[in-house]
Amino acid sequence: MPPAGWDVQAICGGDLRAAAALMRGLDDDLPGAREALRAIYPRGGQAFLVGLTGSPGVGKSTLVSALISAVRARGERVAVVAVDPSSPFSGGALLGDRVRMHKHVLDGGVFIRSLATRGHQGGLSRSTAAAVAVLDAAGFPVILVETVGAGQAELDVADATDAVVVVTAPGLGDDVQALKVGLLEIADILVVNKGDREGADRAAADLMAMLALAARPAPPILKTTATTESGIEELVAALELLRHRPEAERAARRRHQAARQVAAMAADPLRARLQAAVSGASAGDPLSHTIASVADRTLDPWSASDFLMSVLK
Amino acid sequence: MPPAGWDVQAICGGDLRAAAALMRGLDDDLPGAREALRAIYPRGGQAFLVGLTGSPGVGKSTLVSALISAVRARGERVAVVAVDPSSPFSGGALLGDRVRMHKHVLDGGVFIRSLATRGHQGGLSRSTAAAVAVLDAAGFPVILVETVGAGQAELDVADATDAVVVVTAPGLGDDVQALKVGLLEIADILVVNKGDREGADRAAADLMAMLALAARPAPPILKTTATTESGIEELVAALELLRHRPEAERAARRRHQAARQVAAMAADPLRARLQAAVSGASAGDPLSHTIASVADRTLDPWSASDFLMSVLK
Repeated sequence: MPPAGWDVQAICGGDLRAAAALMRGLDDDLPGAREALRAIYPRGGQAFLVGLTGSPGVGKSTLVSALISAVRARGERVAVVAVDPSSPFSGGALLGDRVRMHKHVLDGGVFIRSLATRGHQGGLSRSTAAAVAVLDAAGFPVILVETVGAGQAELDVADATDAVVVVTAPGLGDDVQALKVGLLEIADILVVNKGDREGADRAAADLMAMLALAARPAPPILKTTATTESGIEELVAALELLRHRPEAERAARRRHQAARQVAAMAADPLRARLQAAVSGASAGDPLSHTIASVADRTLDPWSASDFLMSVLK
Repeated sequence: MPPAGWDVQAICGGDLRAAAALMRGLDDDLPGAREALRAIYPRGGQAFLVGLTGSPGVGKSTLVSALISAVRARGERVAVVAVDPSSPFSGGALLGDRVRMHKHVLDGGVFIRSLATRGHQGGLSRSTAAAVAVLDAAGFPVILVETVGAGQAELDVADATDAVVVVTAPGLGDDVQALKVGLLEIADILVVNKGDREGADRAAADLMAMLALAARPAPPILKTTATTESGIEELVAALELLRHRPEAERAARRRHQAARQVAAMAADPLRARLQAAVSGASAGDPLSHTIASVADRTLDPWSASDFLMSVLK
């Protein structure tokens, strides 16, 4: 790989080795990787981007695996960007989940990319967006973005995809608790997975009752059993409807997403700048004094934050 | 309530009605509320702040209820700040959880404050910190901070409390998945709740194996069954050890927390400013043009974010 750059030509020609190399380069922030990303960005925009999200234990990975099979059966190539929990302990992603996708490993029409949640949420959204942009430019017609875990990363998936599938399952403590309510807002399709389990119908009914309170039209609620691929055909059909949204609707969604993505990306380095300014403050630095004052309660953190804002303009 | 301010004197004297009024005022950002918060902040710092966090369905609320009983049995008053999921659908918090604490409602020595996750994560950390500061100034010797859900809010609890209890339970899908790994980093105590269930011992063993990989000394792992209050005595004893940390250790933790809190609080309004700048951009505004370019892929979001940073300085 010449230090001058990455093989943009090969990536846009569908060379997966080159695409994977750029994704790794972006993860490690190697020289030229960002520039290559910028160069390939205009070549994307064709892929159908599907987000899948939900609490741990609902069977998202099994569902993704079943979706991969369904897309492959239609003759389309498919890429998966899976956001995994990780830890400074191991420095990498926990791969337990990926095991469930092992049957697709030898299929050249399937590409799976796991992203570890190194650093904070903002960084994760950034690397997810980068991986999607590379795979999009590399010509995958369908890209599945699976977020494991919860919180902001789950909600951010709505800003990065064309259709969001929110997955729940019966029997995860309180059903109401198990599906965090913020997720209902972003769902284009709701899936009750593990549909063969006791309580699946009640879970679907509960969802319907919650959605009845919503101002917007309720998204479809589907029941699947990913392990037996039951209900997958219906899910694919519902996704196809969203894939062929009217162009005006699609353009409006992408414009809204662009605004939110840019704001999120800019917030990230700004926060890093703040954190560095605060933690790296040397003894003689007025910031160091500010923090010490907060620690000994002679100053409150709200005033300290206002001071910081005024310093940074 | 005079528009000039809130009854700071009464709050610091332990008047719960006045404390609750200020917390509501802070939630609604009423005039003078922030100033009152700043005035009472130096009066706090005495309370023992305990964070409880973990995935949905592990029984956190039942555990909190059992802890309340244990603290009350020792004759101490206790306050709870419970962070609840909420939705634009209903405009408020889901109160299912609180039901489990109903037996403490008539106990004047117990104060429970639910915070809805209105707006984004940063806002939530801010209101949690505010509620804790008010209850601390109002003289509660023990304050439990329970975060429902997951993500950044869960991790932020470590920056706002003296001791973090991370709760898990057997049988939540993959055990490895159920306890998001980032949580292990912040745990001062690990609790396997629902300890009477099948798989509890294996869950504890799995945790121990994961912790063996850690650089830092492993936190204690306790098994509880909150519904029968089994194991609660041991949990209280482990918390008491943390409550009486050496002063130097406590001061170092508070200084570290102060730095992170201030950075997080400043990041919040900065992000809001960005979001407003982006969404509110009028047609003639160069920002509006930038966003349109990202939407039609003639510009990539990374370059747009750099542009935004340069505009905002």
